[in-house]
Amino acid sequence: MTNPVLVEVLRGDIVESVHRGAVAVFDASGTSVLEIGDGGQPVFPRSAVKAIQALPLVESGAADAYGFANKELALACASHGGEPAHVDLAASMLSKAGLDGTALECGTHWPSHQDSTLTLARAGRQPNDLHNNCSGKHSGFICTCVHLGVDPRGYVAAGHRSQQMVREAMQGVTGARHDADHSGIDGCSIPTYAIPLKDLAVGFAKMVTGQGLSPTRAKAAKRLMAACMAEPFYVAGTGRADTRLMQAAPGRIFVKIGAEGVYCAALPELGFGIALKAGDGGERAAEVMVAAVLSRLLKRDEELSKRLAGMARPPVLNRKGLAVGALRPAEALLA
Amino acid sequence: MTNPVLVEVLRGDIVESVHRGAVAVFDASGTSVLEIGDGGQPVFPRSAVKAIQALPLVESGAADAYGFANKELALACASHGGEPAHVDLAASMLSKAGLDGTALECGTHWPSHQDSTLTLARAGRQPNDLHNNCSGKHSGFICTCVHLGVDPRGYVAAGHRSQQMVREAMQGVTGARHDADHSGIDGCSIPTYAIPLKDLAVGFAKMVTGQGLSPTRAKAAKRLMAACMAEPFYVAGTGRADTRLMQAAPGRIFVKIGAEGVYCAALPELGFGIALKAGDGGERAAEVMVAAVLSRLLKRDEELSKRLAGMARPPVLNRKGLAVGALRPAEALLA
Repeated sequence: MTNPVLVEVLRGDIVESVHRGAVAVFDASGTSVLEIGDGGQPVFPRSAVKAIQALPLVESGAADAYGFANKELALACASHGGEPAHVDLAASMLSKAGLDGTALECGTHWPSHQDSTLTLARAGRQPNDLHNNCSGKHSGFICTCVHLGVDPRGYVAAGHRSQQMVREAMQGVTGARHDADHSGIDGCSIPTYAIPLKDLAVGFAKMVTGQGLSPTRAKAAKRLMAACMAEPFYVAGTGRADTRLMQAAPGRIFVKIGAEGVYCAALPELGFGIALKAGDGGERAAEVMVAAVLSRLLKRDEELSKRLAGMARPPVLNRKGLAVGALRPAEALLA
Repeated sequence: MTNPVLVEVLRGDIVESVHRGAVAVFDASGTSVLEIGDGGQPVFPRSAVKAIQALPLVESGAADAYGFANKELALACASHGGEPAHVDLAASMLSKAGLDGTALECGTHWPSHQDSTLTLARAGRQPNDLHNNCSGKHSGFICTCVHLGVDPRGYVAAGHRSQQMVREAMQGVTGARHDADHSGIDGCSIPTYAIPLKDLAVGFAKMVTGQGLSPTRAKAAKRLMAACMAEPFYVAGTGRADTRLMQAAPGRIFVKIGAEGVYCAALPELGFGIALKAGDGGERAAEVMVAAVLSRLLKRDEELSKRLAGMARPPVLNRKGLAVGALRPAEALLA
């Protein structure tokens, strides 16, 4: 099926570009709450499932052994901006396991947070793997290995114990097959598996409620979700959509973006999990989509719903900072 | 109508994202050569029409009066990367009119060319309007005003003589209405007008052949197109698609990207003009689309066509530089 237009990009009063996509909202029992477009098509969730991928860190006892609090757990679920606080915390996590940034195998890139890039350059410095937006997740992988007495070297490979644990967690929570035929390599070098949006939505409903999970897993899942909601700066960073959305209603909204226009989200008070993808991979569209869906699902809280609806209509600015247009949810996305 | 999928983004063997769009190829007489999707829908051409917007610079005699050669004319048609050579040449153009970068009204942003941004930061410097990707075009506007004895201040406004001349050139070449009802403000603060892709394609066929234009305009048009093809570095910059595509067949391919997934292009040997838009505004998709269309139109030159087909399939790299996927033209885009 052809997914509907869910986001319009306006310049003046004229629609300049459009984004199509699909949205799936489910509860933990697998009951559909809201479906727009094709929720059955497999998508690579990319970084949107980092909270699920962090389950072994908690379940193995590594997080407790190393004294990780909400900030460290949030960073393990993060796509951070490479701001100094992110980089320092990733280094601190690795130091608990007796290692440093050279143990990371995620690759290097300049921080997405531009001021942090400029600050590095002004100091005559280069980025390293700690600046990679995935360094918190990878630090979690490494700490889990070290705690379990597993050699972390090569931890990004599909056959390494680290990724076997991650895959088991992903399969257990989402119920979806994770086999080589549905896999690709993620930006940070670990495997990623294409699975239906519906399964991702059910999985995040389970993560936030604990329903349908073993007691140990339920506790770990709820702890990770709570950590992200308690420390949203460490999940993304200054000015980022994930951070702003979770700050809009502390403890009531979990969101996590993934590359190529994916979002996973959860609403503890409703017990709903949300998964969506802008079909063209547009991050700006995914941000509008998730804010609009949250606004729709939380409409009983009029003030919060209105604030989220506002976040679903960000301005398009020109080079002088003048608003020359805006993004907005298309009809199919509104209640 | 719903435009077809024209570009697929693969991770491993799996299609991760797709881009829809439309393509129009016409000759200068208005005869259709190739149409995919809806070529009648108005689109904002954005920076893809800078060569048409530069006509007054040549037609007014300003370019000759200030001794502008191919490099300056290419820069007047450019969305440059803010590399030192671009910035210096824009400053040099303004100096011919007795002005400097403070006369620009395009706004400031860090260079899109990352090494140039890092070099600026390392030197403790900030960008100014000369680093704006549109500074060459704006320098052309200002030089035209000064040559004609028109006060350049406020030259970005729709009612200023500068934009009246630009609008007259756009209407004359494309034949499309340019009225306030179809206008928006561009990233660099000048007006932009939504017009059909078909009219843009016919316009660029006229630009590259001179057919259907007055002798003066035909000469100016062909001079600007030739300047861009002779100096493709000044139209974009290091590693950029426009520069690489024009370098692939010197003097035989003109291309110019516009924001929100637009390309205008022309093939002098065939007398064809090309206009296309990725409907979601994706630049990566527009780059694949234009390379694939050029490959298709130039198929009689097997070697060149093959090289262009290769440029239409760029790899997707992960943070370690490993190819983990690729973009490719979808079936509807291939001959």
